[in-house]
Amino acid sequence: MTDRRQRNLLLLGFGNVGRAFARLVTEKREELAARYGVCFGFAGIVDVGGTLVDPAGNLPVPKILGHVEGGQAPEDFPGFGRPGLGALEAIRSVPADFLVEATPTSLRDGEPARTHVLEGLRAGCHVLSANKGPFIWDYRGIMEAARERDRAVGLSAATAAALPTLDVAELCLAGSRILSVEGILNGTTNYILTRMHQTGCPYEEGLREAQRLGIAETDPSLDVEGWDTANKLLLLANRVFRAGLTPRDVAVEGITAVTPDRIRRAREAGRVIKLIGRIDPAADPARVTVGPEELPADHPLAAVSGSEKAVSFETDSMGRITVSGGHSSPLGAAAALLKDALRISLYYDRSFSRSS
Amino acid sequence: MTDRRQRNLLLLGFGNVGRAFARLVTEKREELAARYGVCFGFAGIVDVGGTLVDPAGNLPVPKILGHVEGGQAPEDFPGFGRPGLGALEAIRSVPADFLVEATPTSLRDGEPARTHVLEGLRAGCHVLSANKGPFIWDYRGIMEAARERDRAVGLSAATAAALPTLDVAELCLAGSRILSVEGILNGTTNYILTRMHQTGCPYEEGLREAQRLGIAETDPSLDVEGWDTANKLLLLANRVFRAGLTPRDVAVEGITAVTPDRIRRAREAGRVIKLIGRIDPAADPARVTVGPEELPADHPLAAVSGSEKAVSFETDSMGRITVSGGHSSPLGAAAALLKDALRISLYYDRSFSRSS
Repeated sequence: MTDRRQRNLLLLGFGNVGRAFARLVTEKREELAARYGVCFGFAGIVDVGGTLVDPAGNLPVPKILGHVEGGQAPEDFPGFGRPGLGALEAIRSVPADFLVEATPTSLRDGEPARTHVLEGLRAGCHVLSANKGPFIWDYRGIMEAARERDRAVGLSAATAAALPTLDVAELCLAGSRILSVEGILNGTTNYILTRMHQTGCPYEEGLREAQRLGIAETDPSLDVEGWDTANKLLLLANRVFRAGLTPRDVAVEGITAVTPDRIRRAREAGRVIKLIGRIDPAADPARVTVGPEELPADHPLAAVSGSEKAVSFETDSMGRITVSGGHSSPLGAAAALLKDALRISLYYDRSFSRSS
Repeated sequence: MTDRRQRNLLLLGFGNVGRAFARLVTEKREELAARYGVCFGFAGIVDVGGTLVDPAGNLPVPKILGHVEGGQAPEDFPGFGRPGLGALEAIRSVPADFLVEATPTSLRDGEPARTHVLEGLRAGCHVLSANKGPFIWDYRGIMEAARERDRAVGLSAATAAALPTLDVAELCLAGSRILSVEGILNGTTNYILTRMHQTGCPYEEGLREAQRLGIAETDPSLDVEGWDTANKLLLLANRVFRAGLTPRDVAVEGITAVTPDRIRRAREAGRVIKLIGRIDPAADPARVTVGPEELPADHPLAAVSGSEKAVSFETDSMGRITVSGGHSSPLGAAAALLKDALRISLYYDRSFSRSS
């Protein structure tokens, strides 16, 4: 029997983030029920070859994870697998409270996640997204669809994952006016720059070290050219400042041209070079820029080292608030998805909160 | 005519924090209405000599501030002043949505704020408190009264003011388990220790400098003996971990015994001495301790210098999250009160949200 406090999830994408999310939510089921009076079950899990379906929301996640980690395709899981059932059909046919978007998606056009998200909203789901793509290209369109159906969209996982950025801006700073946003939002580039400062090595050597440690990807261009930082800032600007920006509207410079000589001169001046993403909310629309900047040693982002991330908000009434840390991992992204699921269940979805 | 999105406030205490709150809320009236669809008006302002009352919630705050800053007593303000009308009578007779507690209150027993808060809840008000006293001595009793009337209690202003602590723990980390809390929660002691590290001076000299700069009070004992830090942690422990603790349950050591020699030895070892407040949530009930600790240079709180504050949460699924900064001023406390007022209006008070 399904607990009436249960919210059913339709998970799209069963890669690292999707599996980490399924595992986390399942492991925490009792803890969440006790602490928040909410629990989550999976009504559908969509992967490339098909879908697992249980309309009651009780897919046996531990067994499915064992099955998949044993090398088998999700859709072959006995009893629940529907080989060939694709994402769009699943969204239309599997009843769920939340659609969780974690499919491999292109940052060039936000697809297929954008289509999934819109279709999920039309089907009456709240949306949680680990993907940035839909929201850098079509933020306004998606939010309009969400408003029409009175559904919520959770973007924490897409905006620096376990490092709280959106929720600090929207909740912790509520009522204050944000005068500027500055962030170190990409762990890979911060790691490379930190090593260049520590050892004097050239960029290429810092990159190779980061790749060796699994911090940088084999193709690091999204990170080192500044676009990962820019995309996170776009989400922040679109959400917090209603900027309606796309990647066409931002000025982005990465770290590939930062030389050991430039690092040395900064260090001699007691300064540090960081890849800083910046939002100027006073511009209309808000202006987003990304590039290497020299920070004085007492700047709150100057001490953010290695693969750590941080964001700093200057406000009118609260002063400057800086947040740093947070797992950069599938688990961190999963935890951010779960956080949004909880908050939407507890605060947004009032009919649910009231009846429980 | 009163806007139907308006929430009426009964402000108790018209000192630095109370006046900063009245000014901030009044100055931001249009901004808040546009951004949140909520606005706030004052139905009552209580000071030692009496009360200003306008049941419609339209007390003319700018004029009242001018009147008071011109050296006159609030209750003498023409048309609205009620000399001799005390806090309890005001709470019982002035209809309001929120009671805002900012009276001078003893930390020895939490009075008179505790009585005001309980009476406000009985009268059907949500409560916002800049005072810690009621919540270090009678947290459970007050929350029981709040539950009985289905009212909310906002404690941000009492728990490090503009530095978000409670809301990071409750909202930004929702769904994760907090494994430890460490904080530098008192600006005065952090300033003194920072100067001792920078100059090698003894504690007394650091204190005198802080007093000269207006950072330390003439009687600094609450700060330097660690109790301000302890009281903030008690609020965090009681709220986030439902610990039910009072000042009798905490082990507190201040910084008065920290010697230049101890600072020097720490520095030579590449470490830094900070006054650290700590919650161990795994103990039952959660354990709160305050005392000087030697931190390694790469500890996220090691770089928090001068009068800055910070809090760091270690979690199971999000890693470590550290927040720093925030005005330590009446404006910062006012902004924290406003934040809670907004959040309660938007999320808690559902009947209001729905109708607006």
